[in-house]
Amino acid sequence: MRPVTDLTGLRIGIIGGTGRQGRGLGLRWARSGQSVILGSRDADRAGAVAAEVGEGATGAANEPAAGDADIIVVTVPWSAHAATVEALEPHTRGKIVIDCVNPIGFDEHGPYALSVPEGSATQQAQQLLSQARVVGAFHHVPAQQLGDRSIERIDMDVLVVGDDRVAVDLVVELAAAIPGLRGISAGRLRNAHQVEALTANLIAINRRYRAHAGIRVTDV
Amino acid sequence: MRPVTDLTGLRIGIIGGTGRQGRGLGLRWARSGQSVILGSRDADRAGAVAAEVGEGATGAANEPAAGDADIIVVTVPWSAHAATVEALEPHTRGKIVIDCVNPIGFDEHGPYALSVPEGSATQQAQQLLSQARVVGAFHHVPAQQLGDRSIERIDMDVLVVGDDRVAVDLVVELAAAIPGLRGISAGRLRNAHQVEALTANLIAINRRYRAHAGIRVTDV
Repeated sequence: MRPVTDLTGLRIGIIGGTGRQGRGLGLRWARSGQSVILGSRDADRAGAVAAEVGEGATGAANEPAAGDADIIVVTVPWSAHAATVEALEPHTRGKIVIDCVNPIGFDEHGPYALSVPEGSATQQAQQLLSQARVVGAFHHVPAQQLGDRSIERIDMDVLVVGDDRVAVDLVVELAAAIPGLRGISAGRLRNAHQVEALTANLIAINRRYRAHAGIRVTDV
Repeated sequence: MRPVTDLTGLRIGIIGGTGRQGRGLGLRWARSGQSVILGSRDADRAGAVAAEVGEGATGAANEPAAGDADIIVVTVPWSAHAATVEALEPHTRGKIVIDCVNPIGFDEHGPYALSVPEGSATQQAQQLLSQARVVGAFHHVPAQQLGDRSIERIDMDVLVVGDDRVAVDLVVELAAAIPGLRGISAGRLRNAHQVEALTANLIAINRRYRAHAGIRVTDV
């Protein structure tokens, strides 16, 4: 096994990689020299989006994208989370799975955190993928900034939560591979819910201040 | 009624004001010229701590401190939250109550967010104080920094949540009255839980990085 903080040659498979966040993360990692496979339910669409992204990114259906990857990143909408993650199970054993999904609802009063029986999307993924090493991260990085090629640096922090410290440390490195981002080890899986749910506050902030808000941790 | 963004002469009553966070907030507001009453279960202790704080702060038992205040700040331990808040009810009608309490537990794996039947400490306070205007804020500002007189500025953000926009805007101003702090309107009461619970992640970060972590919101 390669030393965990060496990202060289690591293949990153992004499930839901044709959505705005997946495509944006793919662009950033591909630009920084990682091998990126964008996954989609529709392999043709994955190929077309990968061609748009460029930088050597390729496209595939979600399951082969997961099968070919060393690290799997889940960026599907919350409504598709459980079914999509469950179908990936045979392709995730022993691998690091990064869950970026925010269980957020909207009504006439704005955004709010949805209740998740397992506690959080990340914990749901860990329950469905018992042989994977699940980590939560990248919940707060605005898709708009990830996807804007004119933005060179995205200066904010990525809170990384997980029970497998080696996996967390690798994801901290993967965050730092994107110019401007800094990964911060931010606690165990059981503390994933509030990190995901905080996205509702950031959306409320975006509406109030017309911003694309992210967060920074001070004194670290 | 005075214009809400004018803090002149506003009396701030801090319930649990002899604890580290309450005393630190009291010090900062008193230094910036606000009238501060530190409340405690024990009026003598409140007076002694107020004398230590100086800057014109006074001490009183919790109930008269609330009764004399224009704005009431709750900084008691979570275990004392419901009983303390309930006893204040007659003194809070029509007033702004700022809840700063973090329902956090600790075990051998570190900090974690406690489940609160009402959703959050702030929502519990609003249910108990139906005639008050309850706002959540100041959850993440480290008591250590508030209390350290050698620190002139505390450069971080205060997420302010509440359903009463006028009250939220006043609390945003109250945060900004402390040098370095910035208040950010961060959503409704129903989004208070994750703001409180994020304190568990910040404590985990403090342990991992030997820091006194706070947060900043980017792009605002």
